Amino acid sequence: MGESIPEFRLDVDRTRRIKMPEAVYCHHKTVEQCVDIVGEFLETSTDAVIATRATPDQFDALTKLQPNSATGTTLTWRPRPPTGRTASVLCAGTSDLPVASEAVETLTALGHSVDLKVDIGVAGLHRLLSVLDEIVAEVVIVLAGMEGALPTVVAGLVSQPIIAVPTSVGYGTAFDGQTALMSMLTSCAPGISVVGIDNGYGAASAAHRILS
Amino acid sequence: MGESIPEFRLDVDRTRRIKMPEAVYCHHKTVEQCVDIVGEFLETSTDAVIATRATPDQFDALTKLQPNSATGTTLTWRPRPPTGRTASVLCAGTSDLPVASEAVETLTALGHSVDLKVDIGVAGLHRLLSVLDEIVAEVVIVLAGMEGALPTVVAGLVSQPIIAVPTSVGYGTAFDGQTALMSMLTSCAPGISVVGIDNGYGAASAAHRILS
Amino acid sequence: MGESIPEFRLDVDRTRRIKMPEAVYCHHKTVEQCVDIVGEFLETSTDAVIATRATPDQFDALTKLQPNSATGTTLTWRPRPPTGRTASVLCAGTSDLPVASEAVETLTALGHSVDLKVDIGVAGLHRLLSVLDEIVAEVVIVLAGMEGALPTVVAGLVSQPIIAVPTSVGYGTAFDGQTALMSMLTSCAPGISVVGIDNGYGAASAAHRILS
Amino acid sequence: MGESIPEFRLDVDRTRRIKMPEAVYCHHKTVEQCVDIVGEFLETSTDAVIATRATPDQFDALTKLQPNSATGTTLTWRPRPPTGRTASVLCAGTSDLPVASEAVETLTALGHSVDLKVDIGVAGLHRLLSVLDEIVAEVVIVLAGMEGALPTVVAGLVSQPIIAVPTSVGYGTAFDGQTALMSMLTSCAPGISVVGIDNGYGAASAAHRILS
Amino acid sequence: MGESIPEFRLDVDRTRRIKMPEAVYCHHKTVEQCVDIVGEFLETSTDAVIATRATPDQFDALTKLQPNSATGTTLTWRPRPPTGRTASVLCAGTSDLPVASEAVETLTALGHSVDLKVDIGVAGLHRLLSVLDEIVAEVVIVLAGMEGALPTVVAGLVSQPIIAVPTSVGYGTAFDGQTALMSMLTSCAPGISVVGIDNGYGAASAAHRILS
Amino acid sequence: MGESIPEFRLDVDRTRRIKMPEAVYCHHKTVEQCVDIVGEFLETSTDAVIATRATPDQFDALTKLQPNSATGTTLTWRPRPPTGRTASVLCAGTSDLPVASEAVETLTALGHSVDLKVDIGVAGLHRLLSVLDEIVAEVVIVLAGMEGALPTVVAGLVSQPIIAVPTSVGYGTAFDGQTALMSMLTSCAPGISVVGIDNGYGAASAAHRILS
Amino acid sequence: MGESIPEFRLDVDRTRRIKMPEAVYCHHKTVEQCVDIVGEFLETSTDAVIATRATPDQFDALTKLQPNSATGTTLTWRPRPPTGRTASVLCAGTSDLPVASEAVETLTALGHSVDLKVDIGVAGLHRLLSVLDEIVAEVVIVLAGMEGALPTVVAGLVSQPIIAVPTSVGYGTAFDGQTALMSMLTSCAPGISVVGIDNGYGAASAAHRILS
Amino acid sequence: MGESIPEFRLDVDRTRRIKMPEAVYCHHKTVEQCVDIVGEFLETSTDAVIATRATPDQFDALTKLQPNSATGTTLTWRPRPPTGRTASVLCAGTSDLPVASEAVETLTALGHSVDLKVDIGVAGLHRLLSVLDEIVAEVVIVLAGMEGALPTVVAGLVSQPIIAVPTSVGYGTAFDGQTALMSMLTSCAPGISVVGIDNGYGAASAAHRILS
Repeated sequence: MGESIPEFRLDVDRTRRIKMPEAVYCHHKTVEQCVDIVGEFLETSTDAVIATRATPDQFDALTKLQPNSATGTTLTWRPRPPTGRTASVLCAGTSDLPVASEAVETLTALGHSVDLKVDIGVAGLHRLLSVLDEIVAEVVIVLAGMEGALPTVVAGLVSQPIIAVPTSVGYGTAFDGQTALMSMLTSCAPGISVVGIDNGYGAASAAHRILS
Repeated sequence: MGESIPEFRLDVDRTRRIKMPEAVYCHHKTVEQCVDIVGEFLETSTDAVIATRATPDQFDALTKLQPNSATGTTLTWRPRPPTGRTASVLCAGTSDLPVASEAVETLTALGHSVDLKVDIGVAGLHRLLSVLDEIVAEVVIVLAGMEGALPTVVAGLVSQPIIAVPTSVGYGTAFDGQTALMSMLTSCAPGISVVGIDNGYGAASAAHRILS
Repeated sequence: MGESIPEFRLDVDRTRRIKMPEAVYCHHKTVEQCVDIVGEFLETSTDAVIATRATPDQFDALTKLQPNSATGTTLTWRPRPPTGRTASVLCAGTSDLPVASEAVETLTALGHSVDLKVDIGVAGLHRLLSVLDEIVAEVVIVLAGMEGALPTVVAGLVSQPIIAVPTSVGYGTAFDGQTALMSMLTSCAPGISVVGIDNGYGAASAAHRILS
Repeated sequence: MGESIPEFRLDVDRTRRIKMPEAVYCHHKTVEQCVDIVGEFLETSTDAVIATRATPDQFDALTKLQPNSATGTTLTWRPRPPTGRTASVLCAGTSDLPVASEAVETLTALGHSVDLKVDIGVAGLHRLLSVLDEIVAEVVIVLAGMEGALPTVVAGLVSQPIIAVPTSVGYGTAFDGQTALMSMLTSCAPGISVVGIDNGYGAASAAHRILS
Repeated sequence: MGESIPEFRLDVDRTRRIKMPEAVYCHHKTVEQCVDIVGEFLETSTDAVIATRATPDQFDALTKLQPNSATGTTLTWRPRPPTGRTASVLCAGTSDLPVASEAVETLTALGHSVDLKVDIGVAGLHRLLSVLDEIVAEVVIVLAGMEGALPTVVAGLVSQPIIAVPTSVGYGTAFDGQTALMSMLTSCAPGISVVGIDNGYGAASAAHRILS
Repeated sequence: MGESIPEFRLDVDRTRRIKMPEAVYCHHKTVEQCVDIVGEFLETSTDAVIATRATPDQFDALTKLQPNSATGTTLTWRPRPPTGRTASVLCAGTSDLPVASEAVETLTALGHSVDLKVDIGVAGLHRLLSVLDEIVAEVVIVLAGMEGALPTVVAGLVSQPIIAVPTSVGYGTAFDGQTALMSMLTSCAPGISVVGIDNGYGAASAAHRILS
Repeated sequence: MGESIPEFRLDVDRTRRIKMPEAVYCHHKTVEQCVDIVGEFLETSTDAVIATRATPDQFDALTKLQPNSATGTTLTWRPRPPTGRTASVLCAGTSDLPVASEAVETLTALGHSVDLKVDIGVAGLHRLLSVLDEIVAEVVIVLAGMEGALPTVVAGLVSQPIIAVPTSVGYGTAFDGQTALMSMLTSCAPGISVVGIDNGYGAASAAHRILS
Repeated sequence: MGESIPEFRLDVDRTRRIKMPEAVYCHHKTVEQCVDIVGEFLETSTDAVIATRATPDQFDALTKLQPNSATGTTLTWRPRPPTGRTASVLCAGTSDLPVASEAVETLTALGHSVDLKVDIGVAGLHRLLSVLDEIVAEVVIVLAGMEGALPTVVAGLVSQPIIAVPTSVGYGTAFDGQTALMSMLTSCAPGISVVGIDNGYGAASAAHRILS
């Protein structure tokens, strides 16, 4: 597109406005753009730096910038100091872990603790009931694919804010997470709010707004 | 369309083939067609006669043919003698009762007993758990609208055949029952089979095949 | 369905579990069922009683039970004492007021204050910017129909938790609120969580979980 | 995600509750997770072990755990002793065999016999009619892709329970099985119940509930 | 819109080009526009005149123009002399008759004979098989709602051209005819072509092209 | 909602920013709100005032405010003086006139001339070809329902800017204008831009931006 | 699946019933199944043999069976002798040729002649008008992707039967042919009938029914 | 398909009719067809030649024809001399650049100047506000993916014609650009017109019509 046209414009003021840094969404960008943008953030900002949705090539290139932590498709640099606050992250199944890790990485970079519980889907209800007393965090993120029923059951049992994350786990009528999404939005249990399909970063950001 | 063209052709042989009579689906028919068809069945068959989805006008006209039972939009004549077998019908909420009544009327006309339980939605899980031991019928029909999670939770707790009925209860993202339908088809619990939205008659027919 | 089958089963224990009473969702119920259920709640519970989505007939019948407040399709009895906490409710346009009123009624019944701002849609950005400094509540509910862009713009400007409510305002490609819903779920601004279309009650419930 | 967080939680109690073991859904899991979970089941349970939807890599790794049977994407260990009961599995075409094999493997692992008939689609009706008298099993699973008409025709001819499985066979307006799914749910023949697209395991589970 | 702007422009040349007159599609027009347009055709053309989709008000007003035939929502004037050719029209159920009548009226106005058969849906296959030898017309129009399987079964049994018409008969997952439409387009039987939902006029026009 | 909360906030500055006044979208508002808002505009602004999508009740009430022009569901006050510029408005059929009138009213209020041509749909191509030389306006608005092909054909014949308006004319697979919308967006002819379904006001506004 | 279960059941009787042989739909089958089925047809039938939708691997394997013709993904053996009848095949663009070739191969194998015209899309109308007089075949197959307007324009100009084939040519809002499909089904021109997306074989079969 | 059938038919007359040459849409064509068609245009026309949507293989082959410019998937030959007119192209994010480049290449080939601004999405509103005064071109193209809010905000701030381009940037509920598309079509800001998803060429063509 020509040398003279800058290809990005950082929102370095975001931390002041909304208490969160701009994250680098790598998907749809070139490897070079990702490296340049993360590099620029590391130079011009003092806040945590978070890169999400990196492809394997982008991940490898960004690893050379020495992130403090890197899981799945998320990398973070310069995590904030601990806030002493905690979010609970509940996964219906093991298959939801890749999305959960995006939330965990983001929350950790923003200084929060995470209490992760896996494989407590409603087909075996006792698994959830047996850990119910341990769900004491100030905000609860609940991930589920397939029919997405877990947030509904949790919302009838605990009083904290609940952020539901539909995941694209499943096939056929799971419709890449749409069924779980619509199920969560239509829940008969009161007070669930929902983020986009597989949007672990969005759930962490919503939790951060509550924890701040 | 002219007098000489017969407007219907009864499937009077159906009882022999599949052990169920043809039901009269009133929707989209004229009042006269409904009355004529039910009248013909009463004359030419000795099996139970079932009319479903009657509009108020159709319902009034059919009432004059002296049904043995009539609830909501369903009317039945000449119920079969009791078979001694029972179906359990579980409603997530009071709002599901109109669909449930179509199933109850049909099952009763076919000679089966029904054990109906209402308002046991998963937002208040203890309501379901408190009646769990009473679900002893040979087949379980579960109705739910909104996010449609009830069949999933039930299927993780009991071993009988489960027929799930999505209802059009809810608004917005309930999408007239589509969300509940997709949720039930994508359940993480094994062995749920599903009928069409609001199809109480279909659920009763599927239960009848199992009970026969 | 016969006298002997109880048509509802109240979740009177809900206040203990999740710090909110069960609300009476009137839609799909008969007038009699609505009146009976609200009456039962008034007798057996000491918490606030909230009825939502009442049809005009249901509204008239419920009005005879002397609600403390009644707007649009929502009625409430015995509001909780003030909690001293506040939610901000932002409407993109005047047309969103019916949905907003469901949220306002619910929040008020649960003891919270509400700061309502109307007609600050993004087509006239200065209207939002001129009231930005007044958005100081602990949680912000943002309603918008049509393209649903308001929550995205707000989320880039304030740091509080944001609960977005898509409304069915608009025609054609508004698709009864689906376009606004999808827009909000896909926001480029971080930390928006979303409830179902026109679900003012759900937004208030989610806000209540944060305010509690 | 750290060593100290267990990545799965087996539902070993499921056999007691619903007379079926938890199956291992391999899709979306890592190879290591699949091997670990199957290994854990083989150690801690005495029931049959079933793994479904294995990718080629997962399949190869699981084959080293010496399954008793393995077809397509399904592997099973320690099949239950024969129950003496039989399910009929009808395929509209040869292309439905991969989905059928998931059902056959599951039913066999649960101790049931299977009577499989292939290529009896309704475009050549005589093929179905010529085998009609052989469909004597206690439950009938019918698979079809494209327009999904086979279950409707079968349901008008036999009286047994019918579980319909839409398959993703076809292209264009087959919409990956959605057309077959909707066709089956909307059948004019009474008493068909339906599972999700390509869900051979779900159909077998529903049949097992009937056969138990 | 002002007197000076003509509100319509007749395609009086159409008979010459495609051997069919332009039909008057009444839906979305005012009563006055319908009457004016039909009147203009009666004056300026010598071919048959066909008006479809008339509302009750439009129907009453057009009746005053003394149509030669009028059924349901279709009215015709000056039918062409008999061509000696015949179309077969097959209805899955009685409920499909309103759509069938639009086809029958159009075909008759264009001079063709019609052989109408009703209530031969595939749930009672013998009804179709018993009339199979009577389907000898040069083209076969097949109407069905719900799952729309009838054209598929017919196409496997006869060799004539088959024009399938999905009807909006059914509820829930019938999706106002979309399920039948997609089923017909995805048929496993060869050589079915399809017109729009409830489009009896379109089916008759396609048959006319074949019969001409 | 209480007396003290103002229910609207006029964007009186809009004319300065974008050279168009804010229009009053009546749909979803109460009659009182419509009258109040139009009244306020008439008092506080000197520009043209436009109210769109008025229900019959709203239309009657607004008529009392003595509009300069009122057609269909649109009313306008104080039209701008003539600009001497012209837009061409092409309707595929008479049924598109209600949407066209919204565009015509808006353009006229903004001071532009309109050249309206009706009933030139592509099924009778000669009607379009015969008026082609008359399409000399600086911008062309093309309305069509059903399959929406008219803008595509026009765009291959003239060089002016083309704004396509899908209308909800048609039934069944017209899907309330969605088919026309998607057809226009996917046109094989270059340079068509599209507004929302039935959005005559939006098309006029886009034309106004070009004419200004 | 065991050796003893035959994996296919040929419909060798089809030629007698509907004057067309069963074609071998290769998609979703293994290479071995394709070769076995074609081999069996070559042995047991004397009619033409047609294989469609072969993957490259299947195509290579089938080529060893020495087809008489093979283009794109279609192979044919033993074409019928010429019938002396002709179908016109019209492509909107060069990109539609792969689908057209499936139709051409099938028609040729069934003994019909084909008159193919390419690149006559409606964005350059003169291309179609210049060949209009050459469209004299007894049936016209029209292929188009994107907005799918070509069949509509053709149907207003010629009187023969028109079979429209939506192709998946285009991107974005072409939705893999759905937009073209819906456009064709909703055409304002009378008498278009439509087959499934990219279904060249289906169009040829429908044309064959007309030509027979 | 045989040597004697020409596979394409150039619309060399298009420049005269609509002041734009036909562009070569490479997608769905073979490499050979692309090279042949571009070659033919270079020989038979004197206007600019534009090829869009080239695959890497097509791109490489076309590069040998020595284009004047080539970016992403677009190549152009013989650009028109400068017109002295300018279009503004605004990208919400860096990820929108590939689509923007298609628009930039096309506009440049047609002789127009382009003022490109990147990364001014509404989550950091100040970025847009800080460049607002620089948006002085005669027409503004606005690209955005995800929730697609940028055109709405721009349309409330500037008075020029606005052509919105939804991009497929995002995942999950971005639905490959559908959410951005619907958002733009449903904008609360007046006078936005929209082209298809990722259709940079279409936006440039629409802009060219305005600039001509």
